Amino acid sequence: MIDIQRAPHLAPSLAERGQPGSRFRVATPALILDIDALDRNIALMAERAKRAGLKLRPHAKSHKSSFIARRQIAAGAAGVCCAKLGEAEALAEAGIDGILITSPLAGGTTARRAAALSKRLTDFAVVVDHADQVRELEAAAGAAGTRLKVVIDIDVGLHRTGVPDMQGAVALMQRIGTAEHLALNGVQGYGGSWQHMKGREARYAAVEQGVAILATAAKSLKAQGAAVAQITGGGTGTFGADAALGILNEVQPGSYVFMDAQYRDALGDDADGAFEQSLFVQSSVISINQPGSVTVDAGLKAFATDAGPPRPATAPFAPDAYAFRGDEHGRVMLPAGHALAIGQRIELVPPHCDPNVDKYDVYHVVSGDKLVDIVAIEARGRSQ
Amino acid sequence: MIDIQRAPHLAPSLAERGQPGSRFRVATPALILDIDALDRNIALMAERAKRAGLKLRPHAKSHKSSFIARRQIAAGAAGVCCAKLGEAEALAEAGIDGILITSPLAGGTTARRAAALSKRLTDFAVVVDHADQVRELEAAAGAAGTRLKVVIDIDVGLHRTGVPDMQGAVALMQRIGTAEHLALNGVQGYGGSWQHMKGREARYAAVEQGVAILATAAKSLKAQGAAVAQITGGGTGTFGADAALGILNEVQPGSYVFMDAQYRDALGDDADGAFEQSLFVQSSVISINQPGSVTVDAGLKAFATDAGPPRPATAPFAPDAYAFRGDEHGRVMLPAGHALAIGQRIELVPPHCDPNVDKYDVYHVVSGDKLVDIVAIEARGRSQ
Repeated sequence: MIDIQRAPHLAPSLAERGQPGSRFRVATPALILDIDALDRNIALMAERAKRAGLKLRPHAKSHKSSFIARRQIAAGAAGVCCAKLGEAEALAEAGIDGILITSPLAGGTTARRAAALSKRLTDFAVVVDHADQVRELEAAAGAAGTRLKVVIDIDVGLHRTGVPDMQGAVALMQRIGTAEHLALNGVQGYGGSWQHMKGREARYAAVEQGVAILATAAKSLKAQGAAVAQITGGGTGTFGADAALGILNEVQPGSYVFMDAQYRDALGDDADGAFEQSLFVQSSVISINQPGSVTVDAGLKAFATDAGPPRPATAPFAPDAYAFRGDEHGRVMLPAGHALAIGQRIELVPPHCDPNVDKYDVYHVVSGDKLVDIVAIEARGRSQ
Repeated sequence: MIDIQRAPHLAPSLAERGQPGSRFRVATPALILDIDALDRNIALMAERAKRAGLKLRPHAKSHKSSFIARRQIAAGAAGVCCAKLGEAEALAEAGIDGILITSPLAGGTTARRAAALSKRLTDFAVVVDHADQVRELEAAAGAAGTRLKVVIDIDVGLHRTGVPDMQGAVALMQRIGTAEHLALNGVQGYGGSWQHMKGREARYAAVEQGVAILATAAKSLKAQGAAVAQITGGGTGTFGADAALGILNEVQPGSYVFMDAQYRDALGDDADGAFEQSLFVQSSVISINQPGSVTVDAGLKAFATDAGPPRPATAPFAPDAYAFRGDEHGRVMLPAGHALAIGQRIELVPPHCDPNVDKYDVYHVVSGDKLVDIVAIEARGRSQ
């Protein structure tokens, strides 16, 4: 439950917990999490990973919350991934262990924070893609008296992060080998842009080409004597391909817990898309003075805006009924003959779940029409 | 200063306060506020309003912070506007008085919160655009034993909120007249879409047409015996037109404290655009494995994304050097022959300041190359 001492403004909503209809009486705009759909999504991915013999380390950059991480770990996940060190610190503070940082870190202060986390947790690793990072982490781990696990990030075609070639990977491995307080644990390759490719075949082809690079890297490092325990990568959209290709031994899907409009469009009815929508933004009608539409209290600040407008979650609204109307407002077109009163609620499916979650401090956890709890999104805004 | 007990992760940056170069050693991505540019912007708008004989009630939806609101009030502002009740509650909690809520409120619980704020503050008003809101506010104000000031929101052509015609405005005025615990204080008309119109003449023409509606409404209400003390509206982009037309007696500019790429493009060298950039996002280089570009730690989660990509704040980068590379990363193209090391900093001008600020918990306040303080953005995420 949320620490209500720090968030007294949530007290009126929380006081109604468990009462019929309480879902639709929370203060809006509110981030709504359907606990039943969430738990089914968590169970389904755990089952898929188990069947494929893959270690599951879901990406917490999607949910940024110990509440969800705990449920994932209880269902069999090995821990979680974090995109940023600040996220990992926030989740570790909330009691989560088994964390892989999937982006390279920069700077001495950051390296010292990573070393502190390595000391505190039983299972903690960070990716590296450059000798300067190795130097900084080695110094920090030495000073802290810890042995820090590192994973070499390989560029599998996105040219965003990662060592760009095999000689580079081997050189970095050798550099890590000279670092007394670092332990090489494996390789990572992540194809962010593959996740939302439309159509199973296009996604599978992209993954096949990309992970072949990762397979070569793992082989090159092994040939040089490195133990490559962890071959990690993948996401919600590429799980099927990752399982079929059998190169990764650990997968990092994130968005499957929530789903969003973007993933629905890309994955369609494919097995990778067989997750339920569990995340919504609830808005309230605040103005009804225009014929044929209403104005709601959720605008540019209430949604991620990088993937188009949100979609009404339920009938009778058309999928394209919502339009942004500035920072604080949205317009929802009404079906002919339909009217709404001031204060009525409209729930919307976020266009892109990860950055949408990052705008909210709490999940309003619901089951059916009841508010079940309000839980903290501890790592929101902790992208440093 | 930030309550470091609640944000221990900021302690390392804060410890360097006042030291040369400390601006460029904060944990990134960080929202940077140039205090000198901010104060010059605040002084310039105060001077413009004073010269035009306009009451200034800057919009706090832009900055969401008591630190900035206090400086605006110290420079002569009558108080601040808030877009949402939750914002007003957060700023009132931080000691700010003189608040106008510029969006209609919906629901009994919300009305009770508004009545509580009316009791607590010496100057507080909310806009209304429908009889149902009047009914809810009257009931709540009566129960709380307060007299709540209301302002009739007039639709000046945006069809977002506001009473759409003069008969409606008069009818709402009469309804307010029957409400013992409400006091009509004036009218509001806001043209959000006028603010970013390119070119002074287009903006002035739009404002002229829109505020004529507001003038008619004010006249109609006065003819019916209402005291219309407050005629409020306007923004950063329309200040010149609002001052020239002389219909408003109170203006609500928000973005002038920061400026952003969108406003720069629209306002150009016009007097309305003569404010300095005071707001930046500072990123760190985390990967340098690609020729000609670097990857930084600021992506879709670090910026508002409704108005294109951010722009590098300083040479040697081209204005379009930055591209989004997913939730957590950006790519910055380098000029020929230029190289950067891991950990180096790049500051960027936000595309759209208001929703950009709403992603961060704190401002890193800087003067020159020194970090001066870290201050809370108390109303961030308080859009309920």
